[in-house]
Amino acid sequence: MNEQWLDAVRWNDDGLVPVIAQDAEDNKILMVAWMNREALRLTADKGYAVYWSRSRGKLWHKGEESGHRQLVREIRLDCDNDVIILQVEQKGGIACHTGRRSCFFQRLENGQWKTVEPVLKEPSEIYGSS
Amino acid sequence: MNEQWLDAVRWNDDGLVPVIAQDAEDNKILMVAWMNREALRLTADKGYAVYWSRSRGKLWHKGEESGHRQLVREIRLDCDNDVIILQVEQKGGIACHTGRRSCFFQRLENGQWKTVEPVLKEPSEIYGSS
Repeated sequence: MNEQWLDAVRWNDDGLVPVIAQDAEDNKILMVAWMNREALRLTADKGYAVYWSRSRGKLWHKGEESGHRQLVREIRLDCDNDVIILQVEQKGGIACHTGRRSCFFQRLENGQWKTVEPVLKEPSEIYGSS
Repeated sequence: MNEQWLDAVRWNDDGLVPVIAQDAEDNKILMVAWMNREALRLTADKGYAVYWSRSRGKLWHKGEESGHRQLVREIRLDCDNDVIILQVEQKGGIACHTGRRSCFFQRLENGQWKTVEPVLKEPSEIYGSS
């Protein structure tokens, strides 16, 4: 298979690229994660987001456990070839491990970070508490 | 001045944090850049985006030359405290140095990156060619 499109990405020194997941419906930014070459190839092949977990050091098929898959509608690359956007349909409506729709739930107000988005589902319900 | 909100950010080993600039009107992602502590402080103080230019190694008052300032409507931080979103009003309607509205103008189509957004203004017109 032709992999020139993968060669075009400017992978960082760890072989990773940051990826912004954005809701295809209303353009809300849901989260930022990382991909290596294999994760991006799999994402394009399978049609759902596969990231590289830096903390666990392995591929992360997002939603495998929670069911909160991200179905990919579009993949974009920036002018420097070093940041990717995924336009996604977020299954379950929850992208953040805290049970919120978006990871960006802290807003700067009068010199303080205020939490401005509700928890839609408790993490224990999403991932199981046992 | 109380700077706890700046302490809350998880700056990387270079003292930087990635920042996504997003159009406050329609949530379109315009660009991704970097800030150090001083850039974020200035951005909050002045109400327009000030980044850290990694290539030039200095503060970058976006739009200083082109007039394409980004007026800040909202500042958000993610659950890991290591990515920031600026909701902005993009003066001139152009965020990218290529003269396009957004830096994310390459879309993956059939295994190739295709340019899908027009140049609104030639870079030589934006920055001057002399």
